[in-house]
Amino acid sequence: MGKSIILRKLLQGDNVLKVAGAHDGLSAKIAENKGFDAIWASGLGISAVETVPDASILSMQEFLNAAISMNQATDIPVIADCDSGFGNIPNVVHMVKKYESAGIAGVCIEDKVFPKLNSFLGGNQQRLISVEEFTSKIRAAKGTQIDPNFVVIARVESLIAGESMEDALYRASCYLDAGADAILIHSKSKTSDEIEEFSKKWSGEVPLFIVPTMYPHISIKNVEKMGIKAVVYANQAIRASVKMMDYVLGNIIEKGTSLEIEGEISNVEEIFSLQNVNQMKLDEEKFSKSTVRS
Amino acid sequence: MGKSIILRKLLQGDNVLKVAGAHDGLSAKIAENKGFDAIWASGLGISAVETVPDASILSMQEFLNAAISMNQATDIPVIADCDSGFGNIPNVVHMVKKYESAGIAGVCIEDKVFPKLNSFLGGNQQRLISVEEFTSKIRAAKGTQIDPNFVVIARVESLIAGESMEDALYRASCYLDAGADAILIHSKSKTSDEIEEFSKKWSGEVPLFIVPTMYPHISIKNVEKMGIKAVVYANQAIRASVKMMDYVLGNIIEKGTSLEIEGEISNVEEIFSLQNVNQMKLDEEKFSKSTVRS
Amino acid sequence: MGKSIILRKLLQGDNVLKVAGAHDGLSAKIAENKGFDAIWASGLGISAVETVPDASILSMQEFLNAAISMNQATDIPVIADCDSGFGNIPNVVHMVKKYESAGIAGVCIEDKVFPKLNSFLGGNQQRLISVEEFTSKIRAAKGTQIDPNFVVIARVESLIAGESMEDALYRASCYLDAGADAILIHSKSKTSDEIEEFSKKWSGEVPLFIVPTMYPHISIKNVEKMGIKAVVYANQAIRASVKMMDYVLGNIIEKGTSLEIEGEISNVEEIFSLQNVNQMKLDEEKFSKSTVRS
Amino acid sequence: MGKSIILRKLLQGDNVLKVAGAHDGLSAKIAENKGFDAIWASGLGISAVETVPDASILSMQEFLNAAISMNQATDIPVIADCDSGFGNIPNVVHMVKKYESAGIAGVCIEDKVFPKLNSFLGGNQQRLISVEEFTSKIRAAKGTQIDPNFVVIARVESLIAGESMEDALYRASCYLDAGADAILIHSKSKTSDEIEEFSKKWSGEVPLFIVPTMYPHISIKNVEKMGIKAVVYANQAIRASVKMMDYVLGNIIEKGTSLEIEGEISNVEEIFSLQNVNQMKLDEEKFSKSTVRS
Repeated sequence: MGKSIILRKLLQGDNVLKVAGAHDGLSAKIAENKGFDAIWASGLGISAVETVPDASILSMQEFLNAAISMNQATDIPVIADCDSGFGNIPNVVHMVKKYESAGIAGVCIEDKVFPKLNSFLGGNQQRLISVEEFTSKIRAAKGTQIDPNFVVIARVESLIAGESMEDALYRASCYLDAGADAILIHSKSKTSDEIEEFSKKWSGEVPLFIVPTMYPHISIKNVEKMGIKAVVYANQAIRASVKMMDYVLGNIIEKGTSLEIEGEISNVEEIFSLQNVNQMKLDEEKFSKSTVRS
Repeated sequence: MGKSIILRKLLQGDNVLKVAGAHDGLSAKIAENKGFDAIWASGLGISAVETVPDASILSMQEFLNAAISMNQATDIPVIADCDSGFGNIPNVVHMVKKYESAGIAGVCIEDKVFPKLNSFLGGNQQRLISVEEFTSKIRAAKGTQIDPNFVVIARVESLIAGESMEDALYRASCYLDAGADAILIHSKSKTSDEIEEFSKKWSGEVPLFIVPTMYPHISIKNVEKMGIKAVVYANQAIRASVKMMDYVLGNIIEKGTSLEIEGEISNVEEIFSLQNVNQMKLDEEKFSKSTVRS
Repeated sequence: MGKSIILRKLLQGDNVLKVAGAHDGLSAKIAENKGFDAIWASGLGISAVETVPDASILSMQEFLNAAISMNQATDIPVIADCDSGFGNIPNVVHMVKKYESAGIAGVCIEDKVFPKLNSFLGGNQQRLISVEEFTSKIRAAKGTQIDPNFVVIARVESLIAGESMEDALYRASCYLDAGADAILIHSKSKTSDEIEEFSKKWSGEVPLFIVPTMYPHISIKNVEKMGIKAVVYANQAIRASVKMMDYVLGNIIEKGTSLEIEGEISNVEEIFSLQNVNQMKLDEEKFSKSTVRS
Repeated sequence: MGKSIILRKLLQGDNVLKVAGAHDGLSAKIAENKGFDAIWASGLGISAVETVPDASILSMQEFLNAAISMNQATDIPVIADCDSGFGNIPNVVHMVKKYESAGIAGVCIEDKVFPKLNSFLGGNQQRLISVEEFTSKIRAAKGTQIDPNFVVIARVESLIAGESMEDALYRASCYLDAGADAILIHSKSKTSDEIEEFSKKWSGEVPLFIVPTMYPHISIKNVEKMGIKAVVYANQAIRASVKMMDYVLGNIIEKGTSLEIEGEISNVEEIFSLQNVNQMKLDEEKFSKSTVRS
């Protein structure tokens, strides 16, 4: 069963989807192991791995390669954070062909100008493109996909760019009309009030996604009551990773030995396990059994 | 000043080099920030990021791309763990051309058969190639480099493969004769006895590297007394990362919110900082100042 | 319909398959335009594009990327020339996962040692691996694929390595038993006698492939009579390309102008056409039509 | 000696530079063999290889990888056609870091909006960015490079976009003030009148580049008289390649054999030669000579 069908079924199911932002195959696999339903191939995370700003510095090819790594590391669907679609209509067409043929379950594009800036950066520099322009990108994405289950999520950045709730709702409804399979409503408010208001006023039939980076107190239970379908924990994995690497590498330098932090980090066997070393050994044994004619 | 010159000067200097194993640009940059002298582009780590065994599954191109990411993320030299050289003489020649032209300061190759197996895996499956074969690879590497400062490290796996201390010493001296700029003597002993014995008996003039994964109690001070020149903390960063991502992602699923772990992970601004967002803003300001003729 | 199903149907059909060796997306697309049934992602060609010997210098990732380019440039199936499988069993397992998930219709692996040497190079250096080893690779490939239509072709190099016709037939039958979907019998004879003899003596039920580089006088009609199923014109495209670039670039230098060769080369519009510029314009027009709510 | 120094010396020398557009390593190497002075990593050509329009569909990473292939295949300098700089100031900064560290001798950026359209496509859709914006990109490029010899060429598209000769001259002088090392003045006129007029009126001290695709009758001698420094034959190689592949593959299908075209294409040995097979054999022999201690 293809990953896009799995994602469709999850979106049609009864439960709130828990989606983990990942930045590489390894973080994706850990998320799968812990019970997440899907992976968010995070633009912030993938950029961070290369130590460049989340500002359209990396190119589509690099984001795609990272998404492919996540997809091959896991059995759960991968949704790719595709910024503003890497350009205009022809870029979106090219993007959908490439992501779909690579087996990625869905993509999310946002209504910001290219090059984009991370939504939590420089608030007054956040600029939206017109509804006409962005709906043409959604139509391009939907009109290009071959697999009917491939999911296109439209991300509304009105509340990030300082526009009104009405603008957000209007845009979301236009994006829905243009064919979007889901709406991601983004907010940088420190409370979940904006999200709550949006979800109350939203009458569209497609699922809603949120990214509660700035309002982490929200819980799956709250979300469920609001009628929101999916929560993207977009950057906790990389923030966890950075914190611990910073501590551990600092401690080694400070103490002049790795002994002290040895008990606080995964052992080598855990790494081997995430690398599927056992499966490799089983494969070698299974396939090396001779069946040569005698 | 090129990175290879920096590495040469470090190897000729008075201090023990502290080298951090990294698996991507981000981990390399954190290591640099904490004070490490150089980066080890770890085969185990790079493979782990793709969730495949450290067994020559990834190809040279993927290891090279990861090393390039590390190199561009930092100002310190990168030493690439190049397994057994990805094949035979022509592969080593090709490898050195590619790594050198990408600005990598040095490479390390080991005397194991291709495809190789991680040194801490399946001890009795560890097989060495002949001294003749391996010295030909060292000659190929040294004979191919254009930059005289490019460093070629020969990794002796005798003690990993169950061979004798004499074999290790003999091989090291042959590799030195063949032109190796440094020797990495590897050991999977739980104590540092083997390393100590080797360093006592070793009379070669080139620097010694060790990777104390299995004997972490050893300290920089001990190492200095033994006359060892560089300590590679090859996998602590990835083991730290895995531990914390596992905990944080597990906690989010368990609690149904990311609130609880919010205080235990880096904040978004720390990620932005590692992405050089401020430098980007400064660049934009600096370069956008108009100088158009009036 | 997936590309692997298309390839299966072609193999089960009545006609001899005409397969064109390609070295990039462009050559693949031209082959499709001229009427070829399938593409051979040629190891020689892909290596030549990078100006490195066809001797396992390029890595799997680079061959895969080239095959993906060909696959996305065309609507016909791509068969990837995968040398000796890039290593041993775990490498073959990894290879099949990657090629299959990228939508490549099939792979061909040969029974030579890794690193391999092009079959027309240094005859007495051509070495085969044992039947046991190679059948384990075929089992690994067949046991790894998920799509039942994915095609695994076993390439018999006995006649290249100076082994007997009996060895070739014995190996082919063992590879068939191990699960190979087709046999490629290679020959460097200047006549088609070897191929003819092999096909007469061959009683296996799977399709036979040939690569008549060294015996180009053979025709599709001859091939059909011999019961051979597919002819791979593996390197004519790159040889054509090299010949003409050499002539044209030489003429420009010699004459000090490109005027003289202008009429002998494709015009810019033909290049635009191969780039699907018209489709891009149609897409832009179609998708930009506004459907915004009024 | 670095490639950027070679390019600088050529630009300061007495002769008109003959620059060949290449689309991969192989075409670059043939150009070098025939006597060209430098390589133009052509955006049109690299896009054509992937069968996508020359309209910012491919990303910087793909153009960079192609330029690296060309650079490693040859000993002459590579100038990378970098479209409009892949975005705005931060993208140009990132671009220069990547191209420079990869050993590319220089880059050329043009004053068109992103995503750009090939200069010979849809004339009335060609749009320029403001002088302020483009000079900021030049300053970004020049302010980012570390190697003082790295060359930044500013490409003036006024005459492509239907602007006046005065606009072209004004822009060129502003780009020169902003730090450009050379000016590429582009024209789609069927005669060389525009180029001639521009070069007469141009009083700037930096070298002029032209791309005479649309006015191929111009000769190196004409160019020399006009005081133009470099002629880029940007697409003749790929147009030659397409023409011949089209003919040869068509003939094989038509005749049912490759015999007929056998004499018209390069033989396999010529391909081997371009792959440096002999050098590989010499390397193997040289480096395999044992120097093991006895």
